[in-house]
Amino acid sequence: MSETILERTEGRISYHDSVEEMVKRIREDGMSNVFDRWASQEKIRCKFCLEGMSCQLCSQGPCRINLKGEQQKGVCGIGPDAMAMRNMLLRNIMGAGTYGHHAYEAFRTLKATGEGKTPFKIKDVDKLKWMCEKVGININQDINRMAVELADFLMTEMRRGSNESSVMVDVFAPRKRKQIWKDLGIYPAGVEHEEQNAVASCLTNVDGDYVSLAKKALRLGLSTIYTAQIGLEMVQDILFGTPTPHEVNVDLGIMDPDYVNIVFNGHQPWAGVATLQKARTKEVQDRAKAAGAKGLRIVGSIETGQELLQRFEIDDVFVGLMGNWLAIEPLLATGTVDVYAMEENCSPPSIDHYAEKYQVTLVGVSTIIGIPGLNHMIPYHPDKVDEMADKLIDLAIENFKKRKDKVKPMVPKHIQRAISGFSTEALLNALGNKLDPLVDVIAAGKIKGVVALVNCSTLRNGPHDWNTINLVKQLIKKDILVVAGGCGNHGLEVAGLCNFDAIEMAGPGLKEVCNMLKIPPVLSFGTCTDTGRISMLVTEIANHLDVDIPDLPIAVTAPEWMEQKATIDGVFAVAYGAYTHLSPTPFLTGGRDLVKLLTEDVEGLTGGKIVLGDDPVEAADNIEAHIISKRRKLGLG
Amino acid sequence: MSETILERTEGRISYHDSVEEMVKRIREDGMSNVFDRWASQEKIRCKFCLEGMSCQLCSQGPCRINLKGEQQKGVCGIGPDAMAMRNMLLRNIMGAGTYGHHAYEAFRTLKATGEGKTPFKIKDVDKLKWMCEKVGININQDINRMAVELADFLMTEMRRGSNESSVMVDVFAPRKRKQIWKDLGIYPAGVEHEEQNAVASCLTNVDGDYVSLAKKALRLGLSTIYTAQIGLEMVQDILFGTPTPHEVNVDLGIMDPDYVNIVFNGHQPWAGVATLQKARTKEVQDRAKAAGAKGLRIVGSIETGQELLQRFEIDDVFVGLMGNWLAIEPLLATGTVDVYAMEENCSPPSIDHYAEKYQVTLVGVSTIIGIPGLNHMIPYHPDKVDEMADKLIDLAIENFKKRKDKVKPMVPKHIQRAISGFSTEALLNALGNKLDPLVDVIAAGKIKGVVALVNCSTLRNGPHDWNTINLVKQLIKKDILVVAGGCGNHGLEVAGLCNFDAIEMAGPGLKEVCNMLKIPPVLSFGTCTDTGRISMLVTEIANHLDVDIPDLPIAVTAPEWMEQKATIDGVFAVAYGAYTHLSPTPFLTGGRDLVKLLTEDVEGLTGGKIVLGDDPVEAADNIEAHIISKRRKLGLG
Repeated sequence: MSETILERTEGRISYHDSVEEMVKRIREDGMSNVFDRWASQEKIRCKFCLEGMSCQLCSQGPCRINLKGEQQKGVCGIGPDAMAMRNMLLRNIMGAGTYGHHAYEAFRTLKATGEGKTPFKIKDVDKLKWMCEKVGININQDINRMAVELADFLMTEMRRGSNESSVMVDVFAPRKRKQIWKDLGIYPAGVEHEEQNAVASCLTNVDGDYVSLAKKALRLGLSTIYTAQIGLEMVQDILFGTPTPHEVNVDLGIMDPDYVNIVFNGHQPWAGVATLQKARTKEVQDRAKAAGAKGLRIVGSIETGQELLQRFEIDDVFVGLMGNWLAIEPLLATGTVDVYAMEENCSPPSIDHYAEKYQVTLVGVSTIIGIPGLNHMIPYHPDKVDEMADKLIDLAIENFKKRKDKVKPMVPKHIQRAISGFSTEALLNALGNKLDPLVDVIAAGKIKGVVALVNCSTLRNGPHDWNTINLVKQLIKKDILVVAGGCGNHGLEVAGLCNFDAIEMAGPGLKEVCNMLKIPPVLSFGTCTDTGRISMLVTEIANHLDVDIPDLPIAVTAPEWMEQKATIDGVFAVAYGAYTHLSPTPFLTGGRDLVKLLTEDVEGLTGGKIVLGDDPVEAADNIEAHIISKRRKLGLG
Repeated sequence: MSETILERTEGRISYHDSVEEMVKRIREDGMSNVFDRWASQEKIRCKFCLEGMSCQLCSQGPCRINLKGEQQKGVCGIGPDAMAMRNMLLRNIMGAGTYGHHAYEAFRTLKATGEGKTPFKIKDVDKLKWMCEKVGININQDINRMAVELADFLMTEMRRGSNESSVMVDVFAPRKRKQIWKDLGIYPAGVEHEEQNAVASCLTNVDGDYVSLAKKALRLGLSTIYTAQIGLEMVQDILFGTPTPHEVNVDLGIMDPDYVNIVFNGHQPWAGVATLQKARTKEVQDRAKAAGAKGLRIVGSIETGQELLQRFEIDDVFVGLMGNWLAIEPLLATGTVDVYAMEENCSPPSIDHYAEKYQVTLVGVSTIIGIPGLNHMIPYHPDKVDEMADKLIDLAIENFKKRKDKVKPMVPKHIQRAISGFSTEALLNALGNKLDPLVDVIAAGKIKGVVALVNCSTLRNGPHDWNTINLVKQLIKKDILVVAGGCGNHGLEVAGLCNFDAIEMAGPGLKEVCNMLKIPPVLSFGTCTDTGRISMLVTEIANHLDVDIPDLPIAVTAPEWMEQKATIDGVFAVAYGAYTHLSPTPFLTGGRDLVKLLTEDVEGLTGGKIVLGDDPVEAADNIEAHIISKRRKLGLG
């Protein structure tokens, strides 16, 4: 890391003052927390694991590859490159599987909605028709029947086997990419099939070839985006509305202890939307008031929060987004949360202690979640979501009654404004429904290029959100427009980079464009699940210009990736043909040929590559250099 | 281990003399091999990994839990029990995924065969009808259309989502188990769905509760057996014939360097059967002779070998089974193999050095396989298997031409006889098509009980196959009938425990029964994939007696489990309600509550449990004590 940043981070655990303040309380209360556990684990890190040179899969292990010693292979005979890549592919499968799970829930929710079994309606009929037209479903039929047909189609796509042709890939992949993927043998089947194929390949003594394993990762990445992510995001738009930009509130200051507060955490908006619909009724507000509260509020936590944020207006019932996953323990410690409802990551496994100390009712609202000490488990099924919302409201009101007497609340004063809800449609709308104005400002050099940031938040490369925010500050100063998704996006929102004030931090060209189009220099495009949505915009531009993805002055960055959905997004980006900056360095540096493959040789195959680097200033310089080189090749200044 | 065994194992790496002899050559030739790599890795084992107290999933790791130190949790907050169980569930998913992949290939092969697109025919029409009748498919229709309908049905079953009811589970589960599984929340959906649900649960910050994770493993185990394994084994019977007992040859002595030898390795018989059919034609034999060979032979390697062995007679073309996976390097070192065709585990990743040294052409014949230095990759698709067989024959004949001059063969003299091909049907046939004679001899105490051994082979608890063979010797001496599947079964076949001579090693009661029924004391029931088949026999007995599985005088043992299909089989056995002996100890001993759950508390839930122990004498004593206690509860002596 560069010296200035090291100086500025000294003593801090987070970029955000709200989190700093709450961690002070957490420590005073003697609570175990992620920041202190990080420091503790730093003392006993395994060097083999850090390099991907450790395998515990079979009973002949655990094995370690010692590149300087006699242990050049595992007992089975696996070498360093394949050991590291297999570990990485396993992580990719976890990411693909989680997106696949989200897509499964989305598709069956759409179907149940079409069948009239949920409290939801088809909100964006135009999008439903657009999507159906794209994939060849008859649009001259009843809306609900169309929804059912689309849901069935998407479910089938996710399960397509090898040698079957995927409509979703054919329709949504960039025109010039398809033959390249076919030639490389990475043109994907459905994500459920690719997951199984990949996980079977990872079995001991099945695939021990790092190149073969890496290709499986690339194929899985493509499969995830085209057969799970894009479909699920479009379905969420159909059900809850396509995002449009609007002003929202973020940071821990949105919490008010005098209200009954139900917080939705994870990635999947089903329970959150159903509860929000109910919470906006007078009946529910009256019940909360009868319990001594000022009312009942819905709060967005991490990606579920973002899903709500980008589609629903802020009011006195839906009050905004608390931040990203490293702010969860701080949020719970405010003593203002009545129900914390969780359906996906990140739902950290030791928040039961917070629930006890600060009187929170923890509720699991999906089939995958599990937390020790979970108070209630209500697995999600579309036809039960109405009941689920009732139950959550009941639990929250009951919790409020005991919380208000037992816990002294502490809420940091910080509330930040952000413009949330960008989407391809919204951006096109700002551009007068054509891409040319964007292409023109890029061609003219006012915007040098576009960087997609899709990201988590991690402590490995500095305090919470430090790397993400500092990298983005560098990029916008260089006249590079940032399109952001994921927990990193929430970090940027909380840091004030997604509002109009941030235009001042941009370079002169970008500043001019932002003022002209009335957009911030960082466009909040949603969650990590919106990787597919972001790719749709880039694909539109490539198809519009009739060039391939690697020809564009764009890059992808994940400056604080943490979990396994980020790794599959990163792998997708490489297959998609993008320069893909990753920090921290994944656990694979023991595989030297593998590192060469992923950071150099793959560029000759897909046009994309992984670029490592933990210093945000250097990372921004490298991205700028890449973008400038691509501009030159396109004949731009 | 008991002293006598320690004494007897000194200096040995395998129970089998053939393997000992070949390893001498391998060492003289300076080849890296699994036995020496084992010894080398023994020097640098990680104690955290051995106890399951290591996690490398996210960028905030790698974490270690130090139960004696300050690191009681990972950075995310995960505790020791959940960390160990999550690692175990991930391994289970790998096993489930591999069985699922095998099932996928089986079902599409059946479909393509019904459509006339493969060189296969419906061989066992009665079984097809029986299976269709079981699951509610009309049997008054054309055989091939029936096959297509069954294939579609089975594919759909494998993909059933949560809240959908599985026909396969309903039809094949023991009558008295179903409600128990429902009450525990482990009644399964289709295996592809359960895999995705489980892998999404393993994501960082999704399921951090060891009880919830353990239940997911149990559900996945049930799903694997009922929606993948049983279907795929029945389909293989339909396509290639239901196994019937017959005498076969095993061990490395079956190899003859003067023939063109094509060896099929893995678990999936498609390429092997197609090639065997062709190899039995005069045309192919003449081509081999024209190349200077005495003919062309097909050799079975590990589980693919067993799949062939149990369904096809030995002759001058199909010569038998070489042994199990730890004998692969020894086999290749004989210098007699022309094509080594691989489609699944175990295909060890560094056999490319053997291929080079001993002139073997390595061919991958599935979409999942990957070996560095693989000479040819022909991914399996049912409608291409005929071409694949031609190609393999061409490659083998070409290889023979160079091999015969370049390599000095060395073939150990050992050939062992075994009776292979037991199945529920075959056993019932031996019993006069009713279960009563078997039940009667158990009731009379001539057979104390039945043990299902499903197993790999590992070096962790002694030389190759040492623990498996010694445990089985103990069991049959105690009048316990052994039904064997998997690589362990091959070890028993090679050791001479699956033939009539072995009757002499049995206790007096079992000896009498074996002589009466003309069966060996160890029934070779096939591969690890036949876990489902073995369970069908046990289910028949339980339903016949109208008792539940935990009431029966039976046990399961995996005395040398190695990979992740063994772990999912083991987990199935626990959910199924069986006493399940495992050796070596899985990597989860750091999770003390987890160990208590799996070895004690689970018995109160499913009636099954895991029993650990690496000494075959003690393990056999414990199994006998368990069987006797179950006999007493049934009122038997």
